[in-house]
Amino acid sequence: MTKNPLIVFLTDFGLQDPYVGIMKGAVLSIDRKAVLIDITHAIEPHNVVQGAVILSAAYRFFPKGTIFVCVVDPGVGTRRRILCVRTRDYYFLAPDNGLLDAVCGQEKKVVARSVVNQKYFLPGLLSATFHGRDIFAPVAAGLAKGRARPEDLGPVIAYRPRLKLPVVKKSRNRLKGVILYFDRFGNAITNICRSDAREKFWAEAEVRVRGHVLGKLRKTYGDWARTAGALFGSADRLEIAYPCGSARKKIPLKAGEEVTVTATVEASGC
Amino acid sequence: MTKNPLIVFLTDFGLQDPYVGIMKGAVLSIDRKAVLIDITHAIEPHNVVQGAVILSAAYRFFPKGTIFVCVVDPGVGTRRRILCVRTRDYYFLAPDNGLLDAVCGQEKKVVARSVVNQKYFLPGLLSATFHGRDIFAPVAAGLAKGRARPEDLGPVIAYRPRLKLPVVKKSRNRLKGVILYFDRFGNAITNICRSDAREKFWAEAEVRVRGHVLGKLRKTYGDWARTAGALFGSADRLEIAYPCGSARKKIPLKAGEEVTVTATVEASGC
Amino acid sequence: MTKNPLIVFLTDFGLQDPYVGIMKGAVLSIDRKAVLIDITHAIEPHNVVQGAVILSAAYRFFPKGTIFVCVVDPGVGTRRRILCVRTRDYYFLAPDNGLLDAVCGQEKKVVARSVVNQKYFLPGLLSATFHGRDIFAPVAAGLAKGRARPEDLGPVIAYRPRLKLPVVKKSRNRLKGVILYFDRFGNAITNICRSDAREKFWAEAEVRVRGHVLGKLRKTYGDWARTAGALFGSADRLEIAYPCGSARKKIPLKAGEEVTVTATVEASGC
Repeated sequence: MTKNPLIVFLTDFGLQDPYVGIMKGAVLSIDRKAVLIDITHAIEPHNVVQGAVILSAAYRFFPKGTIFVCVVDPGVGTRRRILCVRTRDYYFLAPDNGLLDAVCGQEKKVVARSVVNQKYFLPGLLSATFHGRDIFAPVAAGLAKGRARPEDLGPVIAYRPRLKLPVVKKSRNRLKGVILYFDRFGNAITNICRSDAREKFWAEAEVRVRGHVLGKLRKTYGDWARTAGALFGSADRLEIAYPCGSARKKIPLKAGEEVTVTATVEASGC
Repeated sequence: MTKNPLIVFLTDFGLQDPYVGIMKGAVLSIDRKAVLIDITHAIEPHNVVQGAVILSAAYRFFPKGTIFVCVVDPGVGTRRRILCVRTRDYYFLAPDNGLLDAVCGQEKKVVARSVVNQKYFLPGLLSATFHGRDIFAPVAAGLAKGRARPEDLGPVIAYRPRLKLPVVKKSRNRLKGVILYFDRFGNAITNICRSDAREKFWAEAEVRVRGHVLGKLRKTYGDWARTAGALFGSADRLEIAYPCGSARKKIPLKAGEEVTVTATVEASGC
Repeated sequence: MTKNPLIVFLTDFGLQDPYVGIMKGAVLSIDRKAVLIDITHAIEPHNVVQGAVILSAAYRFFPKGTIFVCVVDPGVGTRRRILCVRTRDYYFLAPDNGLLDAVCGQEKKVVARSVVNQKYFLPGLLSATFHGRDIFAPVAAGLAKGRARPEDLGPVIAYRPRLKLPVVKKSRNRLKGVILYFDRFGNAITNICRSDAREKFWAEAEVRVRGHVLGKLRKTYGDWARTAGALFGSADRLEIAYPCGSARKKIPLKAGEEVTVTATVEASGC
């Protein structure tokens, strides 16, 4: 590991309770030089899908060697496994509940291990309710400090996806997707990605949601005003936005709602 | 102090205002090498009891030598004292309003000082409303940098508890406690601790709240479904939880509500 | 730049989405030694005025050389410019929408540049919706690492204020201001500053809001009880507060509401 290893957190712990602080304390008690950064702790409680999507949007922007500690874990204390996944550039620690499904779907090289070696857990304190503190934090710190290598943590296992992430349905001239979640601005983030169709299709296609025709894709949030529109967000996902307002409230929209993109020109099938 | 001293914050400042950032800026202006970590800034405004309980659950997981800056301070600017408390492993700065009561109740060695030496305050700027910036931050940075020792800050005083933390009532076969607060998941955290009774009692006891019989203690959040249950949380406090849901909303429950634990077998008195 | 350059963030991104984490990852991918601190990410979405006021209250408490990354940017992707402002002690990166108006109004030396040199942007990925990641983060990291100097970023331009920040109206014996925003405690922060009148005026003046006479200025939040009062907050702005309660809810008050301060003694004109 480097001199100042980077440990990055994504959880549903929230910031009002002591859980995040305790986890960081447990890391620093083992490795005082670790640098600790948060993606978010505001994943909706137990919403593994939201955690998986947000993690997959964020991880690629961190330096090589980053260790991600991902805890959205309704099954804590049950027999669900804890995984250490090694990709080309990163390490991920997460419960085996699908939280890494979207990341592993994007990566070519995925080596997953079941974390079972109690030598690297918090000594003498394994609780049934807070593995963030008792397992995730000390194992991450062990990796960071170079005290543990992935192969020390447990046996290699096949990575098996656990989530049924909603799939984009394609017909000749149409894509059908759904709203996955809303960001803070009320923008609706969908499961439709730019790579789901050809550039030519996007140039001419029309977006619809809940009976509203949003028209052709915009380029920026400042491109139009006082009506809902659609555009590709920063992670190349189709978003529905309302300039200087919340699409979620203005239209209004719900998670899970269907979004369709239709070719308006005969030749521009997806 | 170590090369990269650790300063850990717990306040009711919230994260929407500039107060936390200003306090950190004030620390770094004195000691650029300090490492700054948050327990939480989301203590309910002026809720000293919640601050005291959360601090006492978290501090033990930080490395030796950590300096805790604790500011839940409705009396800022009045004659309330500011304390520097030294325990075996840690330093605490806090107003003398009971915020350290739960920590000091857990520690054997407690040396408290009244922080009065203005030499270590922010020069030329003592406000009556923001001692976090003007006193707590510069004093913490002074300690961190080794510029000040506790004995430089002011005279030793006797630590006097200020809060009337609700006490668990014990009869031969029964414990009566109360709900202290709720965590983000809606779990109700009580003042009843595992150490309040013998292991044998817990094995057979039944938990009740607001007329609901929750039955025997569970081990993990995943042990049961679709009904409220009780278990020991990560800080060995009795919690009332609702798997994949909020006990606070589902039952529903309020802070201050009575919780009883009763022996179901004649021999298992607490 | 110093060995551990300090980069400080103020945005309206919130903490529930991955945006803040991505921005930090993008910085650390360029400069692993940067120290990252947050003022806040909870500026109300697109509220440039609130961002400007909070930034101006906070920046002076950070060490010399700090680089501030300020992103409240409803015009992202449109033709609005991105600025690098150098003051005597600090660097600021922000959209040219007034977010730096309050800071620049306080500083004597202001050198503004239009950030146009794409050499320092995130390579190969300029999105129209997330300049925090694609421009602000890599430019800040470039400055921090010493790879870029301000003069490398683009041409000097005149700093032009963009906001119409509400002005305090003065007559012989009276100041009229407005409520700018509320802090977490429900204190109403106004645009009236201590420097708007002479000390003698403040000693005898009476504060009114929405028909309520709040009486003379208090010194601390603990100076009175069970009624609204006014005092100067930590940034020397007039605040309306309600001890151990929220002035916003108790009176109640709204942003934009008029606040007047009137001399009660003939001789004490402002």
